[in-house]
Amino acid sequence: MKALLLCGPKSLSILDRPIPIPGEGEVLLRVRAAAICRTDAKMWSSGHRDLRLPRVLGHEVSGTIEGNPGQLYALWPGQACGSCMACRSGRQNLCPDMRITGFHRDGGFAEFLTAPRSSLLEVPEGVGPVMATLAEPLACAVHGVRQGGVSSRERVLIYGAGTLGLLVALVARECGASVVMSDPDIEKLSKSEVFRNRFGIGTDVHPGAPCGLFDVVFNATPAPEAIEAGVDRLAAGGRFCLFSGIGKEPAIPARVVDELHYRELAFIGAYGCRLHDMGEAVRLLSWYSAELGFLIERRIRLDGVQPAMEAVLSGKGFRHVIV
Amino acid sequence: MKALLLCGPKSLSILDRPIPIPGEGEVLLRVRAAAICRTDAKMWSSGHRDLRLPRVLGHEVSGTIEGNPGQLYALWPGQACGSCMACRSGRQNLCPDMRITGFHRDGGFAEFLTAPRSSLLEVPEGVGPVMATLAEPLACAVHGVRQGGVSSRERVLIYGAGTLGLLVALVARECGASVVMSDPDIEKLSKSEVFRNRFGIGTDVHPGAPCGLFDVVFNATPAPEAIEAGVDRLAAGGRFCLFSGIGKEPAIPARVVDELHYRELAFIGAYGCRLHDMGEAVRLLSWYSAELGFLIERRIRLDGVQPAMEAVLSGKGFRHVIV
Repeated sequence: MKALLLCGPKSLSILDRPIPIPGEGEVLLRVRAAAICRTDAKMWSSGHRDLRLPRVLGHEVSGTIEGNPGQLYALWPGQACGSCMACRSGRQNLCPDMRITGFHRDGGFAEFLTAPRSSLLEVPEGVGPVMATLAEPLACAVHGVRQGGVSSRERVLIYGAGTLGLLVALVARECGASVVMSDPDIEKLSKSEVFRNRFGIGTDVHPGAPCGLFDVVFNATPAPEAIEAGVDRLAAGGRFCLFSGIGKEPAIPARVVDELHYRELAFIGAYGCRLHDMGEAVRLLSWYSAELGFLIERRIRLDGVQPAMEAVLSGKGFRHVIV
Repeated sequence: MKALLLCGPKSLSILDRPIPIPGEGEVLLRVRAAAICRTDAKMWSSGHRDLRLPRVLGHEVSGTIEGNPGQLYALWPGQACGSCMACRSGRQNLCPDMRITGFHRDGGFAEFLTAPRSSLLEVPEGVGPVMATLAEPLACAVHGVRQGGVSSRERVLIYGAGTLGLLVALVARECGASVVMSDPDIEKLSKSEVFRNRFGIGTDVHPGAPCGLFDVVFNATPAPEAIEAGVDRLAAGGRFCLFSGIGKEPAIPARVVDELHYRELAFIGAYGCRLHDMGEAVRLLSWYSAELGFLIERRIRLDGVQPAMEAVLSGKGFRHVIV
């Protein structure tokens, strides 16, 4: 089969590899579509704490079980031990033995991959292979909104109007919250205008006239400025969901810690998603497939991945999907 | 009456002042005892965001309603509006109109103070005026442990073995958690040995042989080092209760934010206490008054406050109480 292998920083090659053989409890999945996430571009550019090289990337994948082309599946990219404290308390994404497809084991930038049978979710009719690649990022949004504890009538502010920010916005709206998005890139914001109007998602484009304080803030951007800015936009007792990592620089001013203390704010981390978040995501996809179609920016082939990486890394566009 | 007035940094004077006149819903409280908190020493040394000068300090107070010397009361130092969103959701300590006794209004370093009748808690027989001053810091510990969400069988690590750290330890033990304390001052740690043994509270005195990972960490010290160290001691999914402010320096490394993100940790602020935390604290005091007696380090007079401030600021000892 053809597979796109990452061997080191910015070193991607299309290789001919043997079709992988499923292990016990696993199936051979024929990849129908695989999206490039910004995390893939980050791994391509500078690595990632959970990446083991050489690796076939791709953790936003849809496909069919080889020999049964009639049913489309979305893949939960996690594989947890099932028996540790984290797994037993329903937090498989924190399993110390977690192996993530596209990070610790080969992913979807290939014709085939193997995956645990239990990690596949049936995709309902009406959701095609390309749209089904949104199940994983949407599950991360479902998980993040749960971590943030968003509830009905709360005021939510989201930094970053890329794919993930917009999916968080959708899930927060579905929880009954009011949602405002902030992004310094006005052109990018404008690309989601129809979607935002459809779901009543506001923007916060005039920093001089902020929309008051918020109960929950999300950073759906690696920009570290969002941390201090977001803390200042939280009402007393509010929560900041650290939905994105921010990298190694710059340091966070100590006053942020004092704001948390004196105003009883909370910082709450969110990373990845769990199998049952995927289930909720597939349901949301089946409801809103048409409305989310604009998130598919380009359809490309395997040889189009390398040229697309810089664009994905810049965070300007939405999803590039390999078909 | 005699009152000790703070007029500016390190400027304390004992003055003769008129006995204050209670407003509507208020009573005149004859102060029986008032403890010096490290926050008082901080206010004396360098101010505080909630302090309005000139001010009679003292927010850990017990007393009797003038004319009724038979019943001792502990004072909840808060005064909230009762009608804002924070108050209505049971978080009076976050009321934007909060007026704190000893911060925004005159406190207990005087012969009398006025206080809302509704802020007084009956102290049961067997708890004397000096021990009753522990009700407020104990209520802060009750509140902090609730903010940290400590539950039965969880593993708790507390940085700082001063009065507040020990009270947090007691409350966490009462919740059924296992508790370990860390303090670089071995001599200070040894002063609580009998108490810690009585309640099964461990220490973590050998940094080379840490006691594994924890579900909840508290900083009961302004030392900023506790932030990064505590994050590294948390198990995935754990909570760090920011029980103490850390001041304006130094900055927090960005990697702390990434640890929160990738390991789904939470930072949760805790500041002050609520009226019903005081109720729980008074009950705990009535149970453990004897065991907590060692926290009263010295009994002093009003003219002993100024000389005691440096010692209190150093954080080496336990409570100095004005009688």
